[in-house]
Amino acid sequence: MSPTRSLARLLAPTTIARAHCDLPCGVYDPEQARIEAESCFRIQERYQANDDAAYRARAIAIKEERAELVKHHLDVLWHDYFKPEHLETVPNLHDLFWQATKATSKVKASVDPADGKALLDLIDQVDAAWKATGGPSKTRVAGRPG
Amino acid sequence: MSPTRSLARLLAPTTIARAHCDLPCGVYDPEQARIEAESCFRIQERYQANDDAAYRARAIAIKEERAELVKHHLDVLWHDYFKPEHLETVPNLHDLFWQATKATSKVKASVDPADGKALLDLIDQVDAAWKATGGPSKTRVAGRPG
Amino acid sequence: MSPTRSLARLLAPTTIARAHCDLPCGVYDPEQARIEAESCFRIQERYQANDDAAYRARAIAIKEERAELVKHHLDVLWHDYFKPEHLETVPNLHDLFWQATKATSKVKASVDPADGKALLDLIDQVDAAWKATGGPSKTRVAGRPG
Amino acid sequence: MSPTRSLARLLAPTTIARAHCDLPCGVYDPEQARIEAESCFRIQERYQANDDAAYRARAIAIKEERAELVKHHLDVLWHDYFKPEHLETVPNLHDLFWQATKATSKVKASVDPADGKALLDLIDQVDAAWKATGGPSKTRVAGRPG
Amino acid sequence: MSPTRSLARLLAPTTIARAHCDLPCGVYDPEQARIEAESCFRIQERYQANDDAAYRARAIAIKEERAELVKHHLDVLWHDYFKPEHLETVPNLHDLFWQATKATSKVKASVDPADGKALLDLIDQVDAAWKATGGPSKTRVAGRPG
Amino acid sequence: MSPTRSLARLLAPTTIARAHCDLPCGVYDPEQARIEAESCFRIQERYQANDDAAYRARAIAIKEERAELVKHHLDVLWHDYFKPEHLETVPNLHDLFWQATKATSKVKASVDPADGKALLDLIDQVDAAWKATGGPSKTRVAGRPG
Repeated sequence: MSPTRSLARLLAPTTIARAHCDLPCGVYDPEQARIEAESCFRIQERYQANDDAAYRARAIAIKEERAELVKHHLDVLWHDYFKPEHLETVPNLHDLFWQATKATSKVKASVDPADGKALLDLIDQVDAAWKATGGPSKTRVAGRPG
Repeated sequence: MSPTRSLARLLAPTTIARAHCDLPCGVYDPEQARIEAESCFRIQERYQANDDAAYRARAIAIKEERAELVKHHLDVLWHDYFKPEHLETVPNLHDLFWQATKATSKVKASVDPADGKALLDLIDQVDAAWKATGGPSKTRVAGRPG
Repeated sequence: MSPTRSLARLLAPTTIARAHCDLPCGVYDPEQARIEAESCFRIQERYQANDDAAYRARAIAIKEERAELVKHHLDVLWHDYFKPEHLETVPNLHDLFWQATKATSKVKASVDPADGKALLDLIDQVDAAWKATGGPSKTRVAGRPG
Repeated sequence: MSPTRSLARLLAPTTIARAHCDLPCGVYDPEQARIEAESCFRIQERYQANDDAAYRARAIAIKEERAELVKHHLDVLWHDYFKPEHLETVPNLHDLFWQATKATSKVKASVDPADGKALLDLIDQVDAAWKATGGPSKTRVAGRPG
Repeated sequence: MSPTRSLARLLAPTTIARAHCDLPCGVYDPEQARIEAESCFRIQERYQANDDAAYRARAIAIKEERAELVKHHLDVLWHDYFKPEHLETVPNLHDLFWQATKATSKVKASVDPADGKALLDLIDQVDAAWKATGGPSKTRVAGRPG
Repeated sequence: MSPTRSLARLLAPTTIARAHCDLPCGVYDPEQARIEAESCFRIQERYQANDDAAYRARAIAIKEERAELVKHHLDVLWHDYFKPEHLETVPNLHDLFWQATKATSKVKASVDPADGKALLDLIDQVDAAWKATGGPSKTRVAGRPG
């Protein structure tokens, strides 16, 4: 390699890392799904603890919306983060996501925190799959505070 | 307090903590804003590295949307998580959020990753304010994997 | 079962049919995904036929949005219409949906009508799977005009 | 017409057809409004068959959203598909759409399936107007399976 | 009717006035459409004054969104504020809204401020129709500052 | 008018006005927040006057959505219209917006019109701040009908 080209590579290392990504951005994190799912779980708990009709109607409308966001964040991971080569590391990938999105449909229909908890457990498995396939270092910007 | 009531409180601490919250849910985390802001930053990097007109038009449309989500997540923290009593711990709270949301407006208008980085730094300060006011233990469901 | 209760069941057949559904509504049709995907395909064709920069920037922003709706409609079918018992009839269900949603991501990034066409072909396969599992009669309101 | 120009027209028919369209895409189909309206109708039926308060609050929130989509799809047809020259074929066009959108407002406010059915009947009239003005061949991509 | 119940009705006139309204709320104002249309017009002006490609792609994506909101606000007025009895006062009601929404479609496709201005003029006519039918006093909360 | 001034106007008057704005568009008006807040107030009034469970569930779902729009419109003013130099004219700017957005959160949770009225009063103060800082002439297109 000529000295000039070698220098160019030193000056542009992120370009190389970027090459096997495609817009949008390559930033993925199951934390997005988990935060919305925690919200659903807390809403279910509070629903049980408060029997005011207005409060409960509101809780149900908000939970519907939060659960829809859980689905959206899970879908993005399944569509765009996970690639065919990850099936070796996570052989049950499709079934895991199918279970997790179906559990989210159940959370929409349910005011029982046990259903919210079951969803959180499935999202923890999605999180483990993301970590097992190198997610944190590949998809988040380095240097965020611990 | 009678021994019975005292025992009841020990057995149901989360119910008590929940009582001075109001729906929605009490789940807050600056990570939501940070993930969308990382997305903006990566889009700015990739915009610089790719001069295809279709790619760039798409990058700009997606960045606009991601930055709008950054604003939304910051707004929710400022409106709903932070309370007047937090001003003692975080005296510059309002200015910090004003700077962060104005930095997000700048990110919308800019394709320079330096602007995305400046926003990430401000979100780190928001994250520190959330931690300094007890955010992690008060607003997230315990037991998520490390 | 008492004669009275048995008569009640005969008089309310739709209640029985409804019992193994769950809100929302049970109305599903791959046509929703197809219409949005046709829109993406037409936008790609028109993009190629018009080199005005303003027209093209607009085409890209609209295609992004239409393709997002394709994904959403496909996701709803996979999450909520298809059930474990359908895997016998459609053994490649997960892979088909994974291919179709990944093809939609490609349509977002591409201005080549061949990519739009490939997506339409995959949606035709989804449509066939929906029909093979009894979709039309189970999920649409009878009596619409031919 | 000169032979050359005539040949050019034969070689580029879709360009000519495209010329009197304007982005977005030219894909229109009342089926989009009908599917959402069927959803409203089914929700009304299920609301009547289930008196659980949480179920009903959820049904109402979802119906509101579905009916909003009915309105949106009807509006797009009225704004963009129908043109002044269609008033000859469909002289009651404006009144039909006014009735259909007002019927959708009624469906939002009502839990009576008869209101959902009345809306479906009006959408069938919209569908007939679309067909009478050449909609299917002009606005859908040829070759979809029957 | 007992004298007591009859008195109660006299003491609750707003309930009676409210009876021929339907939720949502009865608050309508063409100002919502106008503000978004002014935004489109300003974007067209700025587009002409700035030939930076990133700026222009962003202007087009934002204008699309703003124009969609114009349509939405116009649609709400036509669907829900205007009633059959208003056709006497505003005989060209349907044509006015059809022109205004078609002008909005044109604004989406155009970067010429003249198209934005034409839309503003049509919205002024909608505003006049709203005023001629008693809109301000019927649909806004009294007492707002001048 | 002198020939010089007339020429200057022909050459770039709007460019000068435009120079200290940034896309998007520079059109701002607290009226957007006020209209949605009036909607919330009316919904609270009607909720109190109608004890039908379906009506009330719907009222709560719609109020949630309207209040979210109030927040959005207030946020846009605070993020983008108000600038550091306005703090001299409106020294309590941050506190005013914090109060107004927190009052909106309260309106989401409340069916008491007094809470809706308190929000309207705060929006009137925002409106006064907008006027005190030159808002009407700087942010709206001249020439709209009185």
